[in-house]
Amino acid sequence: MTRQLLATPDQYRALVDQFDTFLLDMDGVLWQGSKLIPGVDRALARLRALGKRLIFVTNNSTKSRASYVHKLESLGLYGAAPDDIVGAAYATACYLTSIGFPKDKWVYVVGQQGVVDELTAQGFQACGLEDTGVPFTGMDDLAAIQPDPRIGAVVCGFDGHLNYTKLAKAHTYLMSNPDTLFLATNPDVCDPVHGRTFPACGAMYSPLVASTGRSPRVVGKPNATMLDVIVRVHGLDRTCMVGDRLDTDVRFGLNGGCQTLLVLSGVTTEEALFSQNAIAPHYYMASLGELQYIP
Amino acid sequence: MTRQLLATPDQYRALVDQFDTFLLDMDGVLWQGSKLIPGVDRALARLRALGKRLIFVTNNSTKSRASYVHKLESLGLYGAAPDDIVGAAYATACYLTSIGFPKDKWVYVVGQQGVVDELTAQGFQACGLEDTGVPFTGMDDLAAIQPDPRIGAVVCGFDGHLNYTKLAKAHTYLMSNPDTLFLATNPDVCDPVHGRTFPACGAMYSPLVASTGRSPRVVGKPNATMLDVIVRVHGLDRTCMVGDRLDTDVRFGLNGGCQTLLVLSGVTTEEALFSQNAIAPHYYMASLGELQYIP
Repeated sequence: MTRQLLATPDQYRALVDQFDTFLLDMDGVLWQGSKLIPGVDRALARLRALGKRLIFVTNNSTKSRASYVHKLESLGLYGAAPDDIVGAAYATACYLTSIGFPKDKWVYVVGQQGVVDELTAQGFQACGLEDTGVPFTGMDDLAAIQPDPRIGAVVCGFDGHLNYTKLAKAHTYLMSNPDTLFLATNPDVCDPVHGRTFPACGAMYSPLVASTGRSPRVVGKPNATMLDVIVRVHGLDRTCMVGDRLDTDVRFGLNGGCQTLLVLSGVTTEEALFSQNAIAPHYYMASLGELQYIP
Repeated sequence: MTRQLLATPDQYRALVDQFDTFLLDMDGVLWQGSKLIPGVDRALARLRALGKRLIFVTNNSTKSRASYVHKLESLGLYGAAPDDIVGAAYATACYLTSIGFPKDKWVYVVGQQGVVDELTAQGFQACGLEDTGVPFTGMDDLAAIQPDPRIGAVVCGFDGHLNYTKLAKAHTYLMSNPDTLFLATNPDVCDPVHGRTFPACGAMYSPLVASTGRSPRVVGKPNATMLDVIVRVHGLDRTCMVGDRLDTDVRFGLNGGCQTLLVLSGVTTEEALFSQNAIAPHYYMASLGELQYIP
């Protein structure tokens, strides 16, 4: 049975009794933009009082795990440690660790500080941020962009400072050596901001796909690479994935064999849930905040 | 008969006697990088002495037609007027003229000065260059990016100053109004520079394709839109298209029902010409410079 509506405290209690661990998407589940979704603070406290493990899962690659703890606390959500956060940048660094990516190679990052922080936290050498703000004055600038045998991987995340110098360098590293790994933190082509959408990581690596003819290994939800990291670090027994998106969060949980709970506090409406049959969460409810009423 | 090698002065003479007009690709045909291909100056003079009309066709969208005349003259190629140049930016402006794009609407340009110059030369209002160098300081910047009913089209060309602000604005204009036209000057995903390749226009509009789910009308070679402009302005009787690329120049000529001449002075080798059967020029020769020997 799927797409079961949970709407009463007894139903909430029956849900949480089935699980030891909740994987929680954040944007659209805990907050919308910079505002806490009402009741989520009390709901998380109630889940913890019931002995549940909470792991926060995000495709956002711009912030480190420590900065997510700060973001949670800034909205009144206390009790999370950096190890409770699994972000796409962290998962990407874990992937490189898992394949034994050599520590004497460099990772060229088309992305922001969060990606670099997670890579360096696992002992990797990362560069690319130094190309932020480098002006492009004409095609002759490109003579200075040369293949670099020290570069062993190109990692793309969301990059609000994307520029042509970064694209040209990443293109050069990927084209000059077919062994250069090509990774992307997450596949989202848009992020919701202020009630609209804006281009996101999945859009930003597309120029490199077009220019090189290569496709990156995409780490984040709904892909199995991110789930592998969670499995290895935390285990997945009696786990429920909670999210607001069908095509990333719910698919991610289903791909990993988890039970899934869709909340309607983010991008998916009840109408959208029932207007398609491709992705069906096990449960859905109005908002995670409702779990504050668990008896 | 196709792929006929031209290698003697008599063969050159037999070729040019068939045609009144030559459409000439520039990069790889007239010059390589910043160097004139040997003999091309004398070859063009010989063609003009024989009464041939020369039209210069380029997918480059960063330079205006006037700046191409300067580039030709800087390499010693005199005698071309701006009307003899058909660039992808000019052709894009011609397309907007041909469909009666309203002069009270604005065109948002993700591209460089050449695109804006060609649009304004045909009486259109263009914006976008003012977003060059606008720093992105965080997602809260996006609140300032709002739908704008004055914008009627988004035009993408090569943009060495590509940044997230431009992508976010173009995305917003395309998403907020399905009637906003989406055009790209040319489809090239890479440009050859200094013996290597770098991401080009066709790569740079791909983030918007990914984020909006919309596909642009792509004007430049080998698409018919560019050829329509040349047909309308210059006529195509007894015309030969000369280029160094099979997939853009030769295909472009074939798409338009022209005879085609491949020169081996650019990206295509004789081996590459015969290693495929998809695109066959009518004629090929070592270099356009050989035409200086026409008796």
